[in-house]
Amino acid sequence: MVQLVPTADADPVNRLTAILADDLAAVDRVIRSRMESEHARRVGEVATHVIDAGGKRLRPLLTLAAARLCGYAGDAHIGLAATVELIHTATLLHDDVVDESLRRRGRPTANRLWDNKSSVLVGDYLFSRSFQLMVESESLRILGIIADAAATIAEGEVLQLTASRSLATDEPTYLKVIRGKTAALFSAATEVGAVVAGAPEPVIAGLRDFGDAFGMSFQITDDILDYTGSAEILKKNPGDDFRASKLTLPVIKAAAHAGIEERAFWTRVIELGDQREDDLEVAMRLFDRHGALESSRQDARRWSDVAHSSLGAVPESPVGLRALLADLAKDTVSRLT
Amino acid sequence: MVQLVPTADADPVNRLTAILADDLAAVDRVIRSRMESEHARRVGEVATHVIDAGGKRLRPLLTLAAARLCGYAGDAHIGLAATVELIHTATLLHDDVVDESLRRRGRPTANRLWDNKSSVLVGDYLFSRSFQLMVESESLRILGIIADAAATIAEGEVLQLTASRSLATDEPTYLKVIRGKTAALFSAATEVGAVVAGAPEPVIAGLRDFGDAFGMSFQITDDILDYTGSAEILKKNPGDDFRASKLTLPVIKAAAHAGIEERAFWTRVIELGDQREDDLEVAMRLFDRHGALESSRQDARRWSDVAHSSLGAVPESPVGLRALLADLAKDTVSRLT
Repeated sequence: MVQLVPTADADPVNRLTAILADDLAAVDRVIRSRMESEHARRVGEVATHVIDAGGKRLRPLLTLAAARLCGYAGDAHIGLAATVELIHTATLLHDDVVDESLRRRGRPTANRLWDNKSSVLVGDYLFSRSFQLMVESESLRILGIIADAAATIAEGEVLQLTASRSLATDEPTYLKVIRGKTAALFSAATEVGAVVAGAPEPVIAGLRDFGDAFGMSFQITDDILDYTGSAEILKKNPGDDFRASKLTLPVIKAAAHAGIEERAFWTRVIELGDQREDDLEVAMRLFDRHGALESSRQDARRWSDVAHSSLGAVPESPVGLRALLADLAKDTVSRLT
Repeated sequence: MVQLVPTADADPVNRLTAILADDLAAVDRVIRSRMESEHARRVGEVATHVIDAGGKRLRPLLTLAAARLCGYAGDAHIGLAATVELIHTATLLHDDVVDESLRRRGRPTANRLWDNKSSVLVGDYLFSRSFQLMVESESLRILGIIADAAATIAEGEVLQLTASRSLATDEPTYLKVIRGKTAALFSAATEVGAVVAGAPEPVIAGLRDFGDAFGMSFQITDDILDYTGSAEILKKNPGDDFRASKLTLPVIKAAAHAGIEERAFWTRVIELGDQREDDLEVAMRLFDRHGALESSRQDARRWSDVAHSSLGAVPESPVGLRALLADLAKDTVSRLT
């Protein structure tokens, strides 16, 4: 059930979590029951590690909020929210293998604690379990939405592999990468919530577009904060993307305005991955010179505005879930100031 | 269309391929169109490499044969056969990463030509594309069958990871591993062919059980031939499993009868992976002493008999597809003599 709770907490994620606490607990039970394997204990060990490290459960929150916002009173949204989180978890396991990451959210990654093999195969297992779970929704429309999102995610990952260290990568390509990385699953999460609730088509489209634009804003913000945030906020060190030679939006914008000398710098630190002390400071100076961070911030805000206006066709619910979703999109970019 | 062709060729796979040539060509077109990515060229490159190396297309043949055997005259079986082959291809890509394989069917593996990252992500992409393709079947029953197979495959892979180098692994565990490795997809392949054709339930069950038993027989035979086959038949060197310290059925059977000294041998070569010259010859002598290969052959034949009798409830088709499936199961184990 949706609960009316005091909303002293300013963080919209915390408020959504409080309002949807019962739903979220049910999602957690489904996730934990589905990720166990009767035959292969390693599955449960690895999956528990990565699920426990999973953070705020933002994606299932989006599905639950969308369904309840559309007045849904059944329980099929629980399985869908669990599906979305299982897909997310599977991609985290594979991402950490691909990025050779050793830490995620301050904890050692599964590929470090066990090995790459376990991460690849347990990721496959979680993806197949999510697939079983969504078949139980018995909705071909929902299956189609999630299948399309899964393909966009996988395509974005491969694109990132080839694009993320090439200065030839332009903004449209970057947007495709982050749509796959983040927005596609956010968008599927909100859309299936609306679909399972039987919402009218304009409401479904509005919530789908909200998820997409919120996801784009969320990822661009994340990429900016990697340069400007504090270790406390980020739960990782600022500059990690730079040190991993990742081509994110601020770099693309700065490189687009680079002269010969600046271009040589970006080629060395991003394409060749040859970094020296003070390179991060140089990068920050180049960002300043070309307004790269400010222009990225404007893009993040623009996507946040799109998210907000996408809710125009969506009627408010008694507990104010629409306002909370709007706050969520606003709060994300407010971290930038 | 199903074609009547001369059957001079004794190999049932070749005869099935000839009879189902048009269907198979259509499957190939679907696979090639689906594995392309508009945005990420690397997808097409890696996928083409592994699809081209893919061998006999046994799994799609099973779906096509089952559908046509059940009198199916539509074309939805094409997409399902392509789905099955895409799932198989995705698992090959991930398997080669997990096994650190450098060659498959005499060609360099994708993880060697590109890298592990590309194999992981392109595998994910092909799996998500297969998922989109099967949603187009618009059959929740078919989606459920393939989702269950995908989960069994992934679970078997993880189980193999922990079980394949432990002498504590018993025959029931080995059977679970090979059900995931081979039989689950064979079984799903024949079952969805029968379901899409609208066959009566006993016929669907018969073809499902045929696929499962044929798959078990096929994999046990493969594991035996790794010790007894020629390089020409295997398209790899005999003894590869042994040198990779893989615990397959003959080893499990021999180890079950091992005294203290023999047990120390198996522990060293399989669990510790510490192998010396002539170890393969020692292993073959121990197999002989305990009848391990002969007992494994009997198991393979028993599964082949189950496959044959599973076809009991399935009526023959005008072009003799039931007899061909029966020959297929028989031919597999006949390679053992």
